[in-house]
Amino acid sequence: MDELGLIRLLTRDLALTPAVKVGAGDDCAVLDVGIPDRYVLLKADAVVEGIHFLADTPPRKIGHKALGRCLSDIAAMAGTPGSALVTIGLPRRFDPQQVTAIYAGMNALARRYEMAVVGGETTTNPDRIFLSVAVLGTVARDKCVLRSGAKPGDAIFVTGQLGGSLAGKHLEFDPRLAEARWLADRFTVHSMIDLSDGLATDLRHVLTASQVGAEIRSQAIPISAAAKRETRAGDSTKTPLLAALTDGEDFELLFTLAGRQAVPLLDAWKTQFPALPLSCIGKITTAPGLKLRDPGGVRDLTAEGYVHFA
Amino acid sequence: MDELGLIRLLTRDLALTPAVKVGAGDDCAVLDVGIPDRYVLLKADAVVEGIHFLADTPPRKIGHKALGRCLSDIAAMAGTPGSALVTIGLPRRFDPQQVTAIYAGMNALARRYEMAVVGGETTTNPDRIFLSVAVLGTVARDKCVLRSGAKPGDAIFVTGQLGGSLAGKHLEFDPRLAEARWLADRFTVHSMIDLSDGLATDLRHVLTASQVGAEIRSQAIPISAAAKRETRAGDSTKTPLLAALTDGEDFELLFTLAGRQAVPLLDAWKTQFPALPLSCIGKITTAPGLKLRDPGGVRDLTAEGYVHFA
Repeated sequence: MDELGLIRLLTRDLALTPAVKVGAGDDCAVLDVGIPDRYVLLKADAVVEGIHFLADTPPRKIGHKALGRCLSDIAAMAGTPGSALVTIGLPRRFDPQQVTAIYAGMNALARRYEMAVVGGETTTNPDRIFLSVAVLGTVARDKCVLRSGAKPGDAIFVTGQLGGSLAGKHLEFDPRLAEARWLADRFTVHSMIDLSDGLATDLRHVLTASQVGAEIRSQAIPISAAAKRETRAGDSTKTPLLAALTDGEDFELLFTLAGRQAVPLLDAWKTQFPALPLSCIGKITTAPGLKLRDPGGVRDLTAEGYVHFA
Repeated sequence: MDELGLIRLLTRDLALTPAVKVGAGDDCAVLDVGIPDRYVLLKADAVVEGIHFLADTPPRKIGHKALGRCLSDIAAMAGTPGSALVTIGLPRRFDPQQVTAIYAGMNALARRYEMAVVGGETTTNPDRIFLSVAVLGTVARDKCVLRSGAKPGDAIFVTGQLGGSLAGKHLEFDPRLAEARWLADRFTVHSMIDLSDGLATDLRHVLTASQVGAEIRSQAIPISAAAKRETRAGDSTKTPLLAALTDGEDFELLFTLAGRQAVPLLDAWKTQFPALPLSCIGKITTAPGLKLRDPGGVRDLTAEGYVHFA
């Protein structure tokens, strides 16, 4: 059974209450807990030794990644993080310096975003470090952006440059919190998601949730220098374009808004965030499915994110 | 390095914000997120295969325990749970039926307390199941009970019967949510904690946080039938009293209130919760330390929870 099949099984019969505005299936849960004008956002995620980092990964970067993944999800709802809880499973013989440095990485990132680390648990995971982080954030009720609001005619945008994250960015990325809030404050963002599973897969999550399709242009996909370098060096069997479409852990934002807002947005963005590229990569369509337009024509992008050229 | 030493190290330099009313070090974090008259409670905890349950533990009970541990901590603040997030780390070859049943156990407990399960993450933990749960609850600002409020002269109470939890109760316990809220609504509870590490250790947490001492009476400690049975069967090297003092995972409440409230409380409790024993086990003292009074005299209880008879 694959991960998506398992998640479908597990989310079929979850306990619910009227406070739950959005439950499982978006970047964060959205809760009405009685804050006037605001919702609470709740997100938990984990990084595991040997899967998301290695035994010799610099430990501050492990902490940065563990918290940063949750913050990227808070950003995808246009939210503001408030507090984090940390649960760490450690082998019986652990290195206190390594663990302290993991926490230092988390605390440094937390301070940068003026949030708190409010505790958690230490427990035993005999074979490897397992680091689970839960984050509570909030968002203005009328600014919260879901995956499910994309509309035909929307322009599709991504921040940053995609692909090749494993070369380093996956341990050092900046969650796009300020950018997402600025966007939601000034534009009517219809849908948003953070890119963690790869552009093709994450865009498909938006399309499924919104019951629409999309056509993206291959020449508009912003390809990272790392993705290009890996192909040149022979380190990847993927072309740079395929890496940008399918590599995971970019931790950039993908969002959609009405096509007529595209040019004003691009202009305002350049002034506001001159160091971070913003790319319009295509448009939302009424016809379902995800298509890639390149100089040779229009082709299907499969659910797995891989491009099968006809 | 032991767990307490590690926790001291990790909590030395946590990021903080003005919203944090109580950070690391109590049963839950207490946050002011702008709900009029209420605080948010946040708690995360984990259960790990081979540590907190076994490969052949009935999976619904694994789910019950994972969520129940957090609910016991929400109870210890006199709070009400609202929503839970679940992060599960699974070996690559997992049994979908086992995982579904674990979630069924969590959802059943969640429904019993009218709370929601709002999502989470699935990830890989190659060697064993690692189940991390984060719970958001709330509590009336003037009813939130901390560990740090015990006062000399307070009577010390525990609910239920203690010791021998590993014989079964650790997988089936009822978090004392209704009892704790009833208490906080009707009495001025000075301090409260849930019993997860064993009475002697958990009471010591209250004493340290409150900068007081305590004297408890051996003949007043409610000893569970399981603890007595294990001694009779030769399954434990501990006496039943020692088991009640030092076994973990009772998931009962320990709390203190002014001595003059002790008798009115015991009377009202019997009417309200006839099936759940409530025991006054001793009193808070100005002199630091934890002492055990038995027919032979007064002795020290050590930090480790073991009784060294002089």
